[in-house]
Amino acid sequence: MIVEPRTLAGFMELLPNEQILFEQMKQKIEKTYQRFGFLPLDTPILESAEILLAKAGGETEKQIYQFKKGDNDIAMRFDLTVPLAKYVAKNYGNLSFPFRRYQIGKVYRGEKAQKGRFREFYQCDIDIIGDGELSIINDAEIPSVIYNLIKELGFEDFTIRINNRKILNGLFEYINQKDNSTEILRIIDKIEKIGKDAVIEELEKIQVSKEAIEKIINFIEIEGTTDEKLNKLQELNINNETFKLGLDELKNVVYYIRMFGVPDKNFKVDLTIARGLDYYTGTVYETFLNNYRELGSICSGGRYENLAEYYTDKKLPGVGISIGLTRLFYKLNELGLIKAEKSSMSDVLVIPMLEDLATPIKIANALRENEINTEIYLNDKKLKAKLKYADKLEIPYTMIIGEDEVNTNIIKVKNMKTGEEKEAKIFITENKIDVSEIVSIISHK
Amino acid sequence: MIVEPRTLAGFMELLPNEQILFEQMKQKIEKTYQRFGFLPLDTPILESAEILLAKAGGETEKQIYQFKKGDNDIAMRFDLTVPLAKYVAKNYGNLSFPFRRYQIGKVYRGEKAQKGRFREFYQCDIDIIGDGELSIINDAEIPSVIYNLIKELGFEDFTIRINNRKILNGLFEYINQKDNSTEILRIIDKIEKIGKDAVIEELEKIQVSKEAIEKIINFIEIEGTTDEKLNKLQELNINNETFKLGLDELKNVVYYIRMFGVPDKNFKVDLTIARGLDYYTGTVYETFLNNYRELGSICSGGRYENLAEYYTDKKLPGVGISIGLTRLFYKLNELGLIKAEKSSMSDVLVIPMLEDLATPIKIANALRENEINTEIYLNDKKLKAKLKYADKLEIPYTMIIGEDEVNTNIIKVKNMKTGEEKEAKIFITENKIDVSEIVSIISHK
Repeated sequence: MIVEPRTLAGFMELLPNEQILFEQMKQKIEKTYQRFGFLPLDTPILESAEILLAKAGGETEKQIYQFKKGDNDIAMRFDLTVPLAKYVAKNYGNLSFPFRRYQIGKVYRGEKAQKGRFREFYQCDIDIIGDGELSIINDAEIPSVIYNLIKELGFEDFTIRINNRKILNGLFEYINQKDNSTEILRIIDKIEKIGKDAVIEELEKIQVSKEAIEKIINFIEIEGTTDEKLNKLQELNINNETFKLGLDELKNVVYYIRMFGVPDKNFKVDLTIARGLDYYTGTVYETFLNNYRELGSICSGGRYENLAEYYTDKKLPGVGISIGLTRLFYKLNELGLIKAEKSSMSDVLVIPMLEDLATPIKIANALRENEINTEIYLNDKKLKAKLKYADKLEIPYTMIIGEDEVNTNIIKVKNMKTGEEKEAKIFITENKIDVSEIVSIISHK
Repeated sequence: MIVEPRTLAGFMELLPNEQILFEQMKQKIEKTYQRFGFLPLDTPILESAEILLAKAGGETEKQIYQFKKGDNDIAMRFDLTVPLAKYVAKNYGNLSFPFRRYQIGKVYRGEKAQKGRFREFYQCDIDIIGDGELSIINDAEIPSVIYNLIKELGFEDFTIRINNRKILNGLFEYINQKDNSTEILRIIDKIEKIGKDAVIEELEKIQVSKEAIEKIINFIEIEGTTDEKLNKLQELNINNETFKLGLDELKNVVYYIRMFGVPDKNFKVDLTIARGLDYYTGTVYETFLNNYRELGSICSGGRYENLAEYYTDKKLPGVGISIGLTRLFYKLNELGLIKAEKSSMSDVLVIPMLEDLATPIKIANALRENEINTEIYLNDKKLKAKLKYADKLEIPYTMIIGEDEVNTNIIKVKNMKTGEEKEAKIFITENKIDVSEIVSIISHK
């Protein structure tokens, strides 16, 4: 009885050439995180439901994969932040603070399946966690990681948008709209889509006073360069401590972002960014590819007051970002925007065309010792089929090894893209085989 | 309300220094697989239960994590072979054969939790899948991958044990014990533990004839070098086609293993190895660290007739191996056998001891451009606390940067292990900072 082979809807499964692209992208992100000294972390995908749902509620809780096994009430992680909180609370005494960790792993959300939405997807996170306190300068280092990372992925024209939640919160306190803040944020978030008049109308509908609406509109209409915006914020003369603190923090972050080497063209202050409603408490980030705004923010995050309040009394402020890699890969691949460094795993395919495989195998072994990824075609096929295999796998070089090659010790190394063939001499002594001429052809593409 | 932070029993979660070790081990395995031109694959952790359980039964089925979400009957993968079978059947038309893939990923088995047993663990698999047929030479390439891999992990004294299931099956056919074969294999597997007499006794208990027992004992008592064993097998004069075919295959595999460069001291024919009861049909492998036999086989696998018979009519023979990385890491770490290449993620910690962070940040940025993993201590702490941080994280180099260093452009680079300090001059021009002297100190440890 044959079961029709299928993959669940909402689960990405790639063909080999796409998988190679995906792996390269993941590696670039990981390398950048390591470059800044973030430590690796790998937490279980399954946690006790009591742990994962200590905070949850609303949409998240509905989407969660939860089940019982034996006595355990188990849930699959839906992000990497809650497991981090548990981890830091659990291992507090064994960690050094600030604790800088990266984690790249799959998370699970049983969303309604639709094109470009995934139920299993990779998140690539970094967080810096302080013990009791954490300098605002960390909030400026994070954008420098984003900057290096997006450039590493091959993009130049992108903008990291930065705001501070205290500025928004302070404004709402000042105009006595604290209780309405969630609704107001939701409405002003739409200004690019629906326009100013529609925003005013919606604000009136939820009983925001004319005076307050004026302040809100003045605020979100602040334009200009980063420094002009900071000045105009000052000039609003909003007499509220939270607002003032937020503005101070934002100024500091801008000051240090520049020091960290992020050019003005790659970041800007965007006063409309709020990033969710109750989690972030200070700096917030979103990152956009300027020519592909429709992708939404490809790297987002911010500062939070207290990472692990559900698991410990210790105060653990932190700042971090997350990249939803699966969706990002899917979109970039769809747009044809991902550049492959290499399209195959093998650098070269050795094609034996003789009975005695000793020499082809020795050459393959020697190439591997020289850090060349080498595959040897071991099955009995016609030459045409062997070459077709190299072609389909986009292996950049091939070497056909027959009686002639073994007798003369001269190997033709063929560049499969250009068709060009170069001759390389190999030197065989009793225990060794010198393939350096082959290596130099393959390495210097 | 505080929820006690805990991790589910049977789920490994490491502290940062152990996690670094784990990642290094995982990377070495991945690098070796890539070196032989295996393609990456990443399948979902969740599959339709109908797919995962198409074959299962017995122990596996009891251990599986299975649950319903919406209309879906979902199961978590318990190995990487079943998902591979589904993948190859599903994507048959888009793959090039032989299809050589590696996959490193977590699998799930709800086993009884006990020390050293894990419910979530990494498997690191390679398989070579043929379309209709697959040359026996592939069965010899696999041990050469194992050989390179175990050496890469830092071990020299290990043995890859090789057998061929057809030899065992042919023997059982020959002595008319085919129906008893499962039981007989289980009993002879214990010979090292319980001794020959006890094995004979147990065989008598299940009604194996005296004659048959004699043949079995003669067979498993075959000793000597690899070539002596092959000769003695021949001399048994077992007139059975399956046996003869198996012996032929084993001879071929031994012939090619040597050609692939695996020294005789690192492999041997072991006629008692069977590897499970119905999956493997030809060559089988187990790998032991000779000084740590108690670890069991650390890398096992073999040849199978038909990968995906439950999902397609296509005949897809294959050969592959699997490493249970989580358990292996746990055991090796417990025995203190894992060597860290580096114990921290950062190569250097920049410690600013002045108000203006411009120069320390510029140095850190420049070092990162030179591929040095660089962390900068950004929080306001006493020097002692900053150095303690570097010490705890085992960061190999530190550089304290204060007013003096900024004025003279001479930086002291301290080796944290030896205590030795070397001076490096930095050169600052308008847009650039030259840190090559620091780089050369840190790179040439």
